[in-house]
Amino acid sequence: MKNTFGMSLFVTIFGESHGKMIGAVIDGLAPGIKIDTDNIEERLAERRPKGKISTARCEKDEFQIVSGEFNGYTTGTPLTVLIPNNDTRSKDYSSLLDVPRPSHADYTATAKYHGFQDYRGGGHFSGRITAALVAAGAILESALKNKGVYIGTHIAKLHGIKDRGFSSYPEDIKLLSEREFPVLSDEAMDKMTREIELAAENKDSVGGILESAIIGLPAGVGEPWFDTAEGLISHILFSVPGIKGVEFGEGFGLADLFGSEANDSFRYENGDVVTKTNKSGGINGGITNGMPITVRCAVRPTPSIFKEQDSVSLKSKQNTKLTIEGRHDPAIIHRARTVVDAVLAIAVADMLTARFGTDFLK
Amino acid sequence: MKNTFGMSLFVTIFGESHGKMIGAVIDGLAPGIKIDTDNIEERLAERRPKGKISTARCEKDEFQIVSGEFNGYTTGTPLTVLIPNNDTRSKDYSSLLDVPRPSHADYTATAKYHGFQDYRGGGHFSGRITAALVAAGAILESALKNKGVYIGTHIAKLHGIKDRGFSSYPEDIKLLSEREFPVLSDEAMDKMTREIELAAENKDSVGGILESAIIGLPAGVGEPWFDTAEGLISHILFSVPGIKGVEFGEGFGLADLFGSEANDSFRYENGDVVTKTNKSGGINGGITNGMPITVRCAVRPTPSIFKEQDSVSLKSKQNTKLTIEGRHDPAIIHRARTVVDAVLAIAVADMLTARFGTDFLK
Amino acid sequence: MKNTFGMSLFVTIFGESHGKMIGAVIDGLAPGIKIDTDNIEERLAERRPKGKISTARCEKDEFQIVSGEFNGYTTGTPLTVLIPNNDTRSKDYSSLLDVPRPSHADYTATAKYHGFQDYRGGGHFSGRITAALVAAGAILESALKNKGVYIGTHIAKLHGIKDRGFSSYPEDIKLLSEREFPVLSDEAMDKMTREIELAAENKDSVGGILESAIIGLPAGVGEPWFDTAEGLISHILFSVPGIKGVEFGEGFGLADLFGSEANDSFRYENGDVVTKTNKSGGINGGITNGMPITVRCAVRPTPSIFKEQDSVSLKSKQNTKLTIEGRHDPAIIHRARTVVDAVLAIAVADMLTARFGTDFLK
Amino acid sequence: MKNTFGMSLFVTIFGESHGKMIGAVIDGLAPGIKIDTDNIEERLAERRPKGKISTARCEKDEFQIVSGEFNGYTTGTPLTVLIPNNDTRSKDYSSLLDVPRPSHADYTATAKYHGFQDYRGGGHFSGRITAALVAAGAILESALKNKGVYIGTHIAKLHGIKDRGFSSYPEDIKLLSEREFPVLSDEAMDKMTREIELAAENKDSVGGILESAIIGLPAGVGEPWFDTAEGLISHILFSVPGIKGVEFGEGFGLADLFGSEANDSFRYENGDVVTKTNKSGGINGGITNGMPITVRCAVRPTPSIFKEQDSVSLKSKQNTKLTIEGRHDPAIIHRARTVVDAVLAIAVADMLTARFGTDFLK
Repeated sequence: MKNTFGMSLFVTIFGESHGKMIGAVIDGLAPGIKIDTDNIEERLAERRPKGKISTARCEKDEFQIVSGEFNGYTTGTPLTVLIPNNDTRSKDYSSLLDVPRPSHADYTATAKYHGFQDYRGGGHFSGRITAALVAAGAILESALKNKGVYIGTHIAKLHGIKDRGFSSYPEDIKLLSEREFPVLSDEAMDKMTREIELAAENKDSVGGILESAIIGLPAGVGEPWFDTAEGLISHILFSVPGIKGVEFGEGFGLADLFGSEANDSFRYENGDVVTKTNKSGGINGGITNGMPITVRCAVRPTPSIFKEQDSVSLKSKQNTKLTIEGRHDPAIIHRARTVVDAVLAIAVADMLTARFGTDFLK
Repeated sequence: MKNTFGMSLFVTIFGESHGKMIGAVIDGLAPGIKIDTDNIEERLAERRPKGKISTARCEKDEFQIVSGEFNGYTTGTPLTVLIPNNDTRSKDYSSLLDVPRPSHADYTATAKYHGFQDYRGGGHFSGRITAALVAAGAILESALKNKGVYIGTHIAKLHGIKDRGFSSYPEDIKLLSEREFPVLSDEAMDKMTREIELAAENKDSVGGILESAIIGLPAGVGEPWFDTAEGLISHILFSVPGIKGVEFGEGFGLADLFGSEANDSFRYENGDVVTKTNKSGGINGGITNGMPITVRCAVRPTPSIFKEQDSVSLKSKQNTKLTIEGRHDPAIIHRARTVVDAVLAIAVADMLTARFGTDFLK
Repeated sequence: MKNTFGMSLFVTIFGESHGKMIGAVIDGLAPGIKIDTDNIEERLAERRPKGKISTARCEKDEFQIVSGEFNGYTTGTPLTVLIPNNDTRSKDYSSLLDVPRPSHADYTATAKYHGFQDYRGGGHFSGRITAALVAAGAILESALKNKGVYIGTHIAKLHGIKDRGFSSYPEDIKLLSEREFPVLSDEAMDKMTREIELAAENKDSVGGILESAIIGLPAGVGEPWFDTAEGLISHILFSVPGIKGVEFGEGFGLADLFGSEANDSFRYENGDVVTKTNKSGGINGGITNGMPITVRCAVRPTPSIFKEQDSVSLKSKQNTKLTIEGRHDPAIIHRARTVVDAVLAIAVADMLTARFGTDFLK
Repeated sequence: MKNTFGMSLFVTIFGESHGKMIGAVIDGLAPGIKIDTDNIEERLAERRPKGKISTARCEKDEFQIVSGEFNGYTTGTPLTVLIPNNDTRSKDYSSLLDVPRPSHADYTATAKYHGFQDYRGGGHFSGRITAALVAAGAILESALKNKGVYIGTHIAKLHGIKDRGFSSYPEDIKLLSEREFPVLSDEAMDKMTREIELAAENKDSVGGILESAIIGLPAGVGEPWFDTAEGLISHILFSVPGIKGVEFGEGFGLADLFGSEANDSFRYENGDVVTKTNKSGGINGGITNGMPITVRCAVRPTPSIFKEQDSVSLKSKQNTKLTIEGRHDPAIIHRARTVVDAVLAIAVADMLTARFGTDFLK
């Protein structure tokens, strides 16, 4: 269903980079959920580019909720949030339809939309559209917090530079919510920021690995066989531009372990069943086991680089050279963090309501 | 929707390890697709355990197609394939409801199904149910081949031991279709087989990484934002028991590259647009670009090991020790390969019909 | 999604008249629902043809539940019920592909399936397949009764002969559950039975109107705008072969009333809000109001008549005459009643779980 | 899925009567469909209230398409159309939460949304929201016309007064497209208009029957068992406020016929298979047969009447009297016609693309 995600709580997104508006519709919300507009604003601000490590395009993101809200609460009808596009410079992009940018969606969009796509600024494939995901996710994130479910994401690695891992989930998630550049250690922040600036100076870009934790989910959530917790979460994570890999718990590291090393044995702790380790990332058989869900995403380096690249002219059917102009991010991983938090909130809210009913989030 | 997967071609699976039957319903098939029962048989045989490196349970998998087929062709109505369970020994599993096996679905199934689940042999969470996926996938795989789409999977790594990578996709895929133990190099076969036997002797188990290639897909397939090629493929891959990570192209390796290293530049080759490298794994912006799709899965070591493990008694609410008995696989990765091929066939057939209409597979 | 119905509780059906088996998969059931096999048997028996007023084909309907059941309760995994076809005489139908029967699905099936359909006995379009709906509905009907929701259907009119209307819903629904020929008045039973026999003698057939009542539903069920109570119920009712009209409450009769006559005014009764009349049939704005849902269906006369009819030869592309042979019902309305009850149970169970969560039926 | 309709072409609607905006998202459109904004404007104008026979509320319906459109054509991404609410007078409705209007959605909305709904002007249940359906339908209607599919609806009966039936479908559909008051005979127009005015003078309201015809559909469209042509069309028709019955072809009239009278026999006409009569309304076995689809809807009298009515006070839990104030329609059937045409366009576009692929409408 393309632009709609969900089993019981449905998020639809729409918009193009240089169209009039982007937006999201959330359908299936219970009535009576408090809408935390501050959180929407904060998350949109967090996502906005800032400083030398991001693009110069800056949107104010003056969102408005035009339906599904009354007196500060959800009504139970579809909630629509709109965000106008203002700071658009369409002249920069006129040649994209002829000479596609390597590893961008220009070529594949032409294959799918036959040239009818709005190619300006990447159109429907622009990172701009993630603002709609962020707004939708922020609404659900607040509702989840009221149920004790918290989500946090840090840059575990940026072009080889590592952050420290999570130590205390609740404290680290709180720490991350206060940080614009999402790392747990100050040292990593300095090194990574410098690495991004360096890449920008070299007309290049860098990527990395995002690591997220979701805490407070009860055991028993997920709908195997197909709608497993991993399946649903990965499905929506791959919607975030630039993500090319998703792993849960030890993920690819499990390939080098014996079963006796990889298994998370059980024990009782304060009357609750817990696991001694969490190499499964909080999920067994596609269903949550009550431990934190840990998930890591590979984020590719931004494909928009200012170095000259090889490409083709689709009109003349010849090889050609391409030098990208305009405004671009030398890294998107620090901004992708906000989008990852948002889509995790969407997936988790959906799984919880599928399991416990729509009213669960009220 | 739990046990149904698809946007335009819907696969529903059902069954328990020790129930009467497992099966699959495929709905949305065009009429007039030739049903290749030989391929179903071969794929089921390939999946069946053999020798010391697999469980001793052996089902004959005497499948029958009970609807949606007439004179060897699909009718366009729901095709149902049933596989009876015969070789079941229910006495082995009676204590699973009390003392859950670490990293199995026993505990999470209890959290979700409150003890009403058929716990015998892992019930609905048994690898046994993958036979239904394999049967459904085999039907679609034959239809895809008729359209020039081929799928192949090898064990890229098993507990640290590496196979060689794909060199020629068409030839390597053909080679893999003839191999029971799915590796490209003979050397890897010997080493890996020995490693599995060794693990079995030590009452332990091993995992690894599966690498798949899908060739012959046209550019323009995939339905962003949410139903991206990566999103759909990962969604169904995480249904395969034991998979904990999925990456496309260079995947997590992209995190260490500059954009100028990670981008796949374009060129014309025999009049077609191709990319010089394929670090994106054949997908940009969630849409296929006409290059081979390459995807790798992390497969955890089988959680069923015969070593004593720590667990809990849910009845007495106390910590306890657990020693698993019964028949189990010291590795499932070589059998998981057949299931991965099957779910890839399902996802690809679904994406193609969503893009080009139901009749595309006819 | 063709052969799957539901928002939160999904019923998939499959099979052909002369195939090996027909069946249904119910997915989304809570674990722990008692399975009332007696009710399945009774409803299947009720649906079976008997006497001169029905076809001579008689299946024993030896259903078996092959998944999703353990020790008499649902497990929470997909429940599959299979019914074998035994009493098939395929020789009767060999010419259907050439000369379509008027107002049957022969011609439209050819338009859709291009001759690949299993045409024997009407194939996928045979009333035979309704046995799968009846089995699925019977399981849900028992679960609904445990929640105080009861469904009953009578023949309000058969070829001009009227039954009396509902007087006391609980008593009349109970009465109908005990009657093979579903009418409320004994007089109607005699007259209608004779009318069917007369039609049979004349090589003709008759239809009528079924009237159903659903009691015990709370107010607040239904998911407007699109998934209204009326929309969902009518959607599945039109799956029942031969139904060509659906109306709620006064239905088409409302067209002749003033608003002041058509409105159902409110009053308190024993502390509950009720309406004085029920011309809306228990639904306002697509949502239940707590009054009985009343719905009427127009059932066309069986298209299989033994009189000579005009048709065409699709092979020779010429007009021709057709005389239908084989075994057929001179009326299906008395048997359709069981199918209508079944699909109403499916729709109501789906709406209730969509509104209150999967566990509601437990 | 509540506010989304469709199998392959998805329409989502949102909004409240006195909220900021209402709107619709159409997802699944092929790229390259010409957007006929004139038709959107005309259909919205046609729907707007005029003269004494409608409400005094008058919105200008200054719609804008904010996504999915580029240079006058669809892009293949979600198309969003927004319509602002301007002429709202919220003071009229403040007591609806306490004293529900008979046969309106006030009471059922409270049962479902627990008082969190935006009750102003009927909120999400206002006829106002149908403007979004009309805008979405108008876009698809133009695309259907380009494929030779035409839809027209007239008032077959209004409070006992009958219009003549369709004689020539193409000419009558053209005639209706030019008429604000949708009847085929001038005499009916005068009589019906006077009947509505009379009802208005008596503080009362009237309803009637709408009859629609869809021509140009090929045989073979519809997806049984569940997604039959009748099932899908009725599903969306019951979304139109006030519709309480739907019948195809002869519908309820079939109940009085013999099979020999009800069957539509086949013959060849200019090389095409046609039926001599069309009592099945163009659909057999849930699949179109190539004849015109004919469908009739019962439209209840507007529940908003100015006569005093019996109701209850939900706060004081007592019976009370209610006199409705504000601006209301003494009949909505002439305006509902535009909405019926719109939802038929949506259902037909969806069925066609489900059958022949997304590109069919291009």
